[in-house]
Amino acid sequence: MDFKLPKTPAVFVKNKSFRLSEVDPDDTAPFEHHPDEREDVLPRLQALRQRLSELQELLYAEHSRSLLIVLQAMDTGGKDGAIENLLTGVNPAGVQVATFKAPTTEELKHDFLWRIHAQAPKKGHIGVFNRSHYEDVLITRVHGMIDEKTCQEHYEDINHFEQLLTRNGTVILKFFLHISKEEQAGRLQARLDDPAKNWKFDPNDLKERAYWDDYQQAYEDALRHCSSKEAPWFVIPANHKWARDLAMSEIVVAALEAMNPQPPKVDFDPKKMVVK
Amino acid sequence: MDFKLPKTPAVFVKNKSFRLSEVDPDDTAPFEHHPDEREDVLPRLQALRQRLSELQELLYAEHSRSLLIVLQAMDTGGKDGAIENLLTGVNPAGVQVATFKAPTTEELKHDFLWRIHAQAPKKGHIGVFNRSHYEDVLITRVHGMIDEKTCQEHYEDINHFEQLLTRNGTVILKFFLHISKEEQAGRLQARLDDPAKNWKFDPNDLKERAYWDDYQQAYEDALRHCSSKEAPWFVIPANHKWARDLAMSEIVVAALEAMNPQPPKVDFDPKKMVVK
Repeated sequence: MDFKLPKTPAVFVKNKSFRLSEVDPDDTAPFEHHPDEREDVLPRLQALRQRLSELQELLYAEHSRSLLIVLQAMDTGGKDGAIENLLTGVNPAGVQVATFKAPTTEELKHDFLWRIHAQAPKKGHIGVFNRSHYEDVLITRVHGMIDEKTCQEHYEDINHFEQLLTRNGTVILKFFLHISKEEQAGRLQARLDDPAKNWKFDPNDLKERAYWDDYQQAYEDALRHCSSKEAPWFVIPANHKWARDLAMSEIVVAALEAMNPQPPKVDFDPKKMVVK
Repeated sequence: MDFKLPKTPAVFVKNKSFRLSEVDPDDTAPFEHHPDEREDVLPRLQALRQRLSELQELLYAEHSRSLLIVLQAMDTGGKDGAIENLLTGVNPAGVQVATFKAPTTEELKHDFLWRIHAQAPKKGHIGVFNRSHYEDVLITRVHGMIDEKTCQEHYEDINHFEQLLTRNGTVILKFFLHISKEEQAGRLQARLDDPAKNWKFDPNDLKERAYWDDYQQAYEDALRHCSSKEAPWFVIPANHKWARDLAMSEIVVAALEAMNPQPPKVDFDPKKMVVK
């Protein structure tokens, strides 16, 4: 993390004593209090988006480094919305969004990072992982599909993998969108009540919801083991969507500003070129 | 092409008697005359972009069909700018832009459609090809890397491949951004004159420019052989960027409107679901 962390409700996971329960999903400080309406923060969000768009263009021109944004959350945590609000307005030609679902039969024939590595962002691009390799220390752990030893090995593999990417010029930012169990209930119910949202509801989400505490525990453990200055985890209080979006945008823009991408120098003399 | 073609300067390549020389790269009719300033058409462009964003969201929700936009042009023809102006504002999570450069050693070990097929848009997505499989009947032909028989076979392979995609629910729109040789000279010179644009200049473009007429011939032939109602080629007069962007946006939105994507029906009764 080669940048000064902007003031947001986000919490950087510094060390192994980190406790998820100490982060309030409702927190919006130090942002000024806003009613829960996007309109109030729109000017700042739009300014950040505009700057993000300019920085992405420079990153693309430079063509030597990349930015990887990893997003994890409980169901209804707001991953899709956060991606949309962060990146709509940026040239899609410079963005790669990879969504990871349950691995396919083919993917299961390989190590758990195989399908992830294939989606690493190209030089000049902003990559987004909607879910990620962290699912392999979350859902698999909660449901006892891996034992403790394997889980510890996975943490190590993940840290090594992320180190490989950062050594190759990829700046990594990881965001856990932190909502409360009550907030999830409200969001699930909204998907049931609004016919236009019915298609977003998955009955299986109710089953997973029963494992809420186990997931929180698995998240806390993963965040503790896999956060560093080089590949930081941020816990984003995410009950309030406007604060979530603003916090993420501030951090992403600050990281890109610090990267300070520059168009490449050319190896010819423009004055000597003649267009016939 | 299951949609009524909106009124734009674009020309649909209907049959084998098509002549590229009959399309004027400067044409802007039936658009009202504007000075060459984007500002005048911005309101319409923004309205189209807004609608495109809504339609993309529905396409994503539906998750059963996709849209593929193929872009070809001479160097400086405006492919990057056209993609940026068409799609910035659409959620990047629903867009996949694939840029095809000279094939790699690995790609050359396969048939020419192998690397293209791998980038076909997923269900629910808008895919964009920045250059495409058509390079294999353009640059290869101009430089005598394929003979006439192979070229004819390639046309056939391309038509079969595009048919495969359309049968699987992909709507294909192909755009040739048509600029004049004089316009290219101006744009190349601008890249030399403006230090901020130097990095976009490739000395090799000057060599390719010498083959201008051969390229025009190869384009005309490819367009004649590979355009149909199912996978149409449009020639977009592209000397005026505002007219180019407006024409493309109008056609893409019209195509998506005709697809009329709908959120999927759910197979559970929302009223019977209980969130505990």
